[in-house]
Amino acid sequence: MLNDKIPDIIISRLPQYLRALNWLEMDGKQTTSSQELADHLGISAAQIRKDLSQFGGFGKQGMGYSIPYLTKELRKILHVDHNWEVALVGVGQLGIAIANYQGFQGRGFNIVMGFDSDPGKIGKKYGNLTVQPIAGMDVAIKNAGIVIAMITVPAGQAQDIADRLVKAEVKTILNYAPINLMVPQGIRMRVIDPVIELQRMTYYLE
Amino acid sequence: MLNDKIPDIIISRLPQYLRALNWLEMDGKQTTSSQELADHLGISAAQIRKDLSQFGGFGKQGMGYSIPYLTKELRKILHVDHNWEVALVGVGQLGIAIANYQGFQGRGFNIVMGFDSDPGKIGKKYGNLTVQPIAGMDVAIKNAGIVIAMITVPAGQAQDIADRLVKAEVKTILNYAPINLMVPQGIRMRVIDPVIELQRMTYYLE
Repeated sequence: MLNDKIPDIIISRLPQYLRALNWLEMDGKQTTSSQELADHLGISAAQIRKDLSQFGGFGKQGMGYSIPYLTKELRKILHVDHNWEVALVGVGQLGIAIANYQGFQGRGFNIVMGFDSDPGKIGKKYGNLTVQPIAGMDVAIKNAGIVIAMITVPAGQAQDIADRLVKAEVKTILNYAPINLMVPQGIRMRVIDPVIELQRMTYYLE
Repeated sequence: MLNDKIPDIIISRLPQYLRALNWLEMDGKQTTSSQELADHLGISAAQIRKDLSQFGGFGKQGMGYSIPYLTKELRKILHVDHNWEVALVGVGQLGIAIANYQGFQGRGFNIVMGFDSDPGKIGKKYGNLTVQPIAGMDVAIKNAGIVIAMITVPAGQAQDIADRLVKAEVKTILNYAPINLMVPQGIRMRVIDPVIELQRMTYYLE
């Protein structure tokens, strides 16, 4: 299977290409080049061509890439040619901001469930979700067959939530809590942490 | 200079090591190993040893790493052995959530200025910032010598804000808006976009 062969570092760049293509398309463009993508992303044109060639290549020599075609193919590769249902655990300030984030539109994800421990929030609607009590989270997620969750609870509660999500058969977790979470092998987790991004850049500042 | 020699991909992992060390220290640990860091981060122990060896290596064979020492050295390398002042542009739902984010504490950043176009928000305090009118942003940032900014305005305003930040001599931008921004060479920009992180993981889902 392709899945086992392509290095994760290449996979990690495909969503960036998709984001840039989306933007070029909104800008009214029909075709693009590795150089134009490079200008948008700060990744070299050679790297972009090499990455895309791993999947057979999507352009004709000297003709550039068709934006709709490359978008469609990348969406297939990344399995976002359909929408995934997503659960959001923690509907505080950050959770609400995420539920209302305009960047989800048309990119493969639909936040359909939100959970919070605050009784005052139960029943409130944000984006496509209605807040449900966190006590019923495990059953609700498992019954709905949801395999993707975002954790936006305070640090002290995050590991317990992660453990419960794993038991509810969630396979993919995006963790916004400022704490390292331990999950079993086979569960994919990524972290959103502005400090990590900032520290990557301060290295280059004097 | 070291700065020109170490590949960016290695630099990108150092903040992750620092985050894991921070967590291990809070957990009461004094020493750690590449294997323990690997277990926390999903990066191989061999990779971690190789990365750290680029800077001369910080452990003794078979003794592991001193957490306080490695933390101090990584903070020096990443230039977060002191605090950077940061400006936040856009104090809406997301901006407020970021201003209140607990993960900034003790990691090298202090959000000291916030700007918004909503007159009703001027003077309000969130975390360490007081909201100021966006009209005065350029002068305030330049006078304060702030070189790091976070953009949390709606997509339609983000490019204009980025252009103004560059003129105000900001060198490092963290962009939360769901849009690709163009900045001149020499300005570092990174994006926070949950969809990019999720798409990296759905590749592995079936």
